[in-house]
Amino acid sequence: MKKFQVIFQPTGRRGEVEEGKTVLEASRELGAEIESLCGGEKTCGKCRVKLLEGELSPFTWEEAKFIEDKEKAQGYRLSCAAHILGDVSLSLPEESKVQKQRISKEIAENTIPLRPAITSCSVELIPPTLNDPLGDFDRLKNTLLDKYRLSSLNIDYPALLKLSRSLRMNGWKANIALWMDKEILDIKPSKADDLYGLAIDVGTTTVAGYLCNLRNGKILAMQSIMNPQISYGEDVMSRINYTMAHPDGLEVLQRSIMGGLNQLIKTLSENCHLLSEDILELTVVGNTTMHHLLLGINPQYLGVAPFPPAIHHSIDVKARDLGLKVHPSANVHVLPIEAGFVGADNVGVLIAQEPYNQDEMVLIIDVGTNGELVMGNRKKLISSSCATGPALEGAHIKFGMRAAPGAIERIQIDPETNEVRFKVIGNDGWNAELPNPKAMGICGSGIIDGIAELYRTGLIDKGGRLNRENQSPRLKTTNGILEFVIAWKEETAIGKEITISQQDVRNAQLAKAALYAGAKLMMRRLGIEKLDEVILAGAFGSYIDPEKAMILGMFPDCDLKNVYAIGNAAGDGARIALLNRDKRAEANEIARKVEYIELTIEGNFQKEFIEAMHIPHMHDPFPHLKGIVKDEILSQ
Amino acid sequence: MKKFQVIFQPTGRRGEVEEGKTVLEASRELGAEIESLCGGEKTCGKCRVKLLEGELSPFTWEEAKFIEDKEKAQGYRLSCAAHILGDVSLSLPEESKVQKQRISKEIAENTIPLRPAITSCSVELIPPTLNDPLGDFDRLKNTLLDKYRLSSLNIDYPALLKLSRSLRMNGWKANIALWMDKEILDIKPSKADDLYGLAIDVGTTTVAGYLCNLRNGKILAMQSIMNPQISYGEDVMSRINYTMAHPDGLEVLQRSIMGGLNQLIKTLSENCHLLSEDILELTVVGNTTMHHLLLGINPQYLGVAPFPPAIHHSIDVKARDLGLKVHPSANVHVLPIEAGFVGADNVGVLIAQEPYNQDEMVLIIDVGTNGELVMGNRKKLISSSCATGPALEGAHIKFGMRAAPGAIERIQIDPETNEVRFKVIGNDGWNAELPNPKAMGICGSGIIDGIAELYRTGLIDKGGRLNRENQSPRLKTTNGILEFVIAWKEETAIGKEITISQQDVRNAQLAKAALYAGAKLMMRRLGIEKLDEVILAGAFGSYIDPEKAMILGMFPDCDLKNVYAIGNAAGDGARIALLNRDKRAEANEIARKVEYIELTIEGNFQKEFIEAMHIPHMHDPFPHLKGIVKDEILSQ
Repeated sequence: MKKFQVIFQPTGRRGEVEEGKTVLEASRELGAEIESLCGGEKTCGKCRVKLLEGELSPFTWEEAKFIEDKEKAQGYRLSCAAHILGDVSLSLPEESKVQKQRISKEIAENTIPLRPAITSCSVELIPPTLNDPLGDFDRLKNTLLDKYRLSSLNIDYPALLKLSRSLRMNGWKANIALWMDKEILDIKPSKADDLYGLAIDVGTTTVAGYLCNLRNGKILAMQSIMNPQISYGEDVMSRINYTMAHPDGLEVLQRSIMGGLNQLIKTLSENCHLLSEDILELTVVGNTTMHHLLLGINPQYLGVAPFPPAIHHSIDVKARDLGLKVHPSANVHVLPIEAGFVGADNVGVLIAQEPYNQDEMVLIIDVGTNGELVMGNRKKLISSSCATGPALEGAHIKFGMRAAPGAIERIQIDPETNEVRFKVIGNDGWNAELPNPKAMGICGSGIIDGIAELYRTGLIDKGGRLNRENQSPRLKTTNGILEFVIAWKEETAIGKEITISQQDVRNAQLAKAALYAGAKLMMRRLGIEKLDEVILAGAFGSYIDPEKAMILGMFPDCDLKNVYAIGNAAGDGARIALLNRDKRAEANEIARKVEYIELTIEGNFQKEFIEAMHIPHMHDPFPHLKGIVKDEILSQ
Repeated sequence: MKKFQVIFQPTGRRGEVEEGKTVLEASRELGAEIESLCGGEKTCGKCRVKLLEGELSPFTWEEAKFIEDKEKAQGYRLSCAAHILGDVSLSLPEESKVQKQRISKEIAENTIPLRPAITSCSVELIPPTLNDPLGDFDRLKNTLLDKYRLSSLNIDYPALLKLSRSLRMNGWKANIALWMDKEILDIKPSKADDLYGLAIDVGTTTVAGYLCNLRNGKILAMQSIMNPQISYGEDVMSRINYTMAHPDGLEVLQRSIMGGLNQLIKTLSENCHLLSEDILELTVVGNTTMHHLLLGINPQYLGVAPFPPAIHHSIDVKARDLGLKVHPSANVHVLPIEAGFVGADNVGVLIAQEPYNQDEMVLIIDVGTNGELVMGNRKKLISSSCATGPALEGAHIKFGMRAAPGAIERIQIDPETNEVRFKVIGNDGWNAELPNPKAMGICGSGIIDGIAELYRTGLIDKGGRLNRENQSPRLKTTNGILEFVIAWKEETAIGKEITISQQDVRNAQLAKAALYAGAKLMMRRLGIEKLDEVILAGAFGSYIDPEKAMILGMFPDCDLKNVYAIGNAAGDGARIALLNRDKRAEANEIARKVEYIELTIEGNFQKEFIEAMHIPHMHDPFPHLKGIVKDEILSQ
């Protein structure tokens, strides 16, 4: 097979690539991270590169949909459509680089009752003699029974290998690490040490890890990385498709997330001056697809009705069987999942928020590419999920991007002048006054803000149509599509205006309508008229403005003082399970108790969905928006 | 590092070896198996090679002890003492080649009540629907609970990975393989298949495997291999020493036995037209050192008082954690061990023979380099071990060899003419009349026969001294040591006479005295005067002639009709544990109940030992030898 030299600028990543591979494939091989939301399907247009030198395969009609003639002349291509046919030098435009997502640092300081699965106890053994030559393990077992009433103990194989030496290193005094009071994981000749565990939230986009001290529950370090699977597809369906389209796809995706997790483990433990071998247990949450891909379970049946997961119940797997580089005897506790589209992440949210322990009727929305909804109280809880699409995360949006530095996250529009103020992540000034970073795109909360403001100021109507009659210089038409300029060219880092287009509004409407219709059907199922409380969860959730979300109509009317955007509740749930084993039993119980409603088979879904396309809704009254949105706008 | 070309003839094994390595090391690297009883300590003299071409390091004084001047002139060297300093061609004399040991084929056809740990059950699941989208594992679990009352089921990780696909391959009908009714090991879309398991006896010398059908208890194939660790030392102490003297010694020895076991597994399953993945469980017995080396546990504490093992209790380890290539979810059940020198092999003997279920007072001798003794009945059982040395296995004997083809296994001496008749393993004629194989050495049963016959015919006295006055042409002196010719030069394959020397008789006396003294002290401990029954066990045991063994005085007097040489009872025990899980509990119970007696600290051991050096004993009467050995000889 012929090979060619490929160079990615500005980083200078380079290497040899086989003839005929796409630029996207080349970028994966060479470690140049190109944003690919659709997973190389030529449908998202995000993976643009600029050819600097050399030649690629001819420009295709699919590329023409995303690359204007002027850009084409400059050498722009879609990396998934352009094949390597000779030595090339390519440039990655700013907006095509995979960005590090900003994630919530404000972890709710819960007071979690400490009862971790990992415990330790100190022992001093009576040394063997010729009259009492009992074996080391049996001797230890007897002591643990006598002193701590621990019976039926097993020893994990790697621990057995070090047992004899460890017991003798400090005169038969040792410190024993146990899992669930039944498995010996380690024997240390030292005094009682601190014990460490790691809670992980594997999101489709972001993977967050919390390294915790299991003795006091403290978070020692917190770190997030991009889910490295992202370059194989942005959403769960494109990853499932990847595993089905490639013979080694499942293996590739599992290896990819394991590589990421091992990197996360390394960074976190180094930050705390620990060894990764000090980590004695991990708890993991994630949506059902992430759960399957992490464990290496073929996710194909998640993609077709009736979408049953391979396993609901929580599972404990040896970290070594997964290839995770932590303590050789560490277990990985993967939380249970509720349904094909309601995963362990949602179970994490549940045990963190405990809606089953309250009287108030609550709706919890875990915003994501796949929206997960839970509704109820101590009497009954139901869940459902809806394919919101990635619009509320900033994808399938013309200038959409994740909540990373450079993303517009807040938008205000003056109702009189229609002038725009915006805030960029990482830039403390308004409209990116400060030098860096300048605006590069709009993230989910920016889209919600923007559309809510466009509606509040009358720039779009209830149906989401941009008002063609408006005389604002920000309103313009490109290729026949109306769009509203949020940031002028000179306010951006990408050398062009950033806009919200009519198409973007439509995509956001589709997303919010799915959530709203889901919530309505769930209320009907529960026979309730109103919600006492709405919780917006997700690493994303903390950046949504509850007021703007309600103006947009992401959920039915509720007293705004009872609408909360909480932090990464799924991650909190993983941490809670790490620190308290009883919560694991609770998680399994609740995962089975929550009744899953498949929305698409509810007869009224289509009707509800269409009505919910309106902003905030076709005819539902929103008494709590009174005074926030002008009456004449609300009652259009 | 400089490298040289080394060739071993007649097999032609060749390769490059680093300068300075010994020929023995070179042989291991190149896979030319050289017999090394002492593990390269220059003390056994077994590892002779002949230099054909090239040059080795200078001849040493240690070699002079084993290689006569004439042989030296012919190029003979000890492979552990000669270092590679240039390209060489070497020849392996017949007697230096590691031989395949003959092991018992006559497996006692026990009627073992079948209750294996591995079971299977057929299920047919109701497929999931949108109204019942329960996960695959949870669905399976419910069905197994409903239909088979199986609760608290886990699924092993590799089984989880194939679950979803397997369930769908045959329309939700499947066959489930279970371990101990609590762990799902496999899901097959086929009808109930046969289930297979492997029982393994890891001896210091021989490793025997029994591939069994777990549905009917039948042995499908039986195979034995040399324990590949043999080239690192013949007895347990030299292997322990090897692990202590080499930083990677433990790893080398474990890898070595695992390589052997994987080869055994491959051969056995191929013989039965099975895949090695069809093997769902293994049971293993072995002495304590073999147990530790197999598991990779540092055996160093077994070598020093008070000799406690790392673990007495049986242990279940995943085969994949050990590196065994069988079913990915297979467990390895390692039977419990009694004490530092009474291992899982002896526990195997116990559950096979069940002395704890009989009234007769029995002595069970497991003959080996390390003799293991059990004595008692249903009221009480005690065990002990004694370092017999390897003489009764044919090592530390001038022409000793293992019970392999070419070994003299039977010796008869005419009391009138002192003429000798002998039988060679693999040759049906007496005195190796048939062309092949000719005699190459003497194995343990040959030594026992030979010395018993020398005594019965008066050629040696009670003290074991060869009668210097005897005029037999077979009596000769070499280097000042008397020896008795068993096979004339022309009757052998090694180009010289095979003899039993005065030194050999001494070594055998030391071995048998240890066993006898041990048995005496155990009888005293139990307060008994006589034994009702003696059982000689060991792969070796089946070839001992009980009468000759009693003439030699390997055990106290007993009615000869109650002395049995049984087959490989340890291997039987492994097979019983494979086929009946209740026997595993019984094994753990009995392993703790048997009282271990450390003979060396019993005050009378030295005295008893010295008295037992005599044949059959200094003054114990042997009423049951009356009529077998002439009175005047017995009452010397």
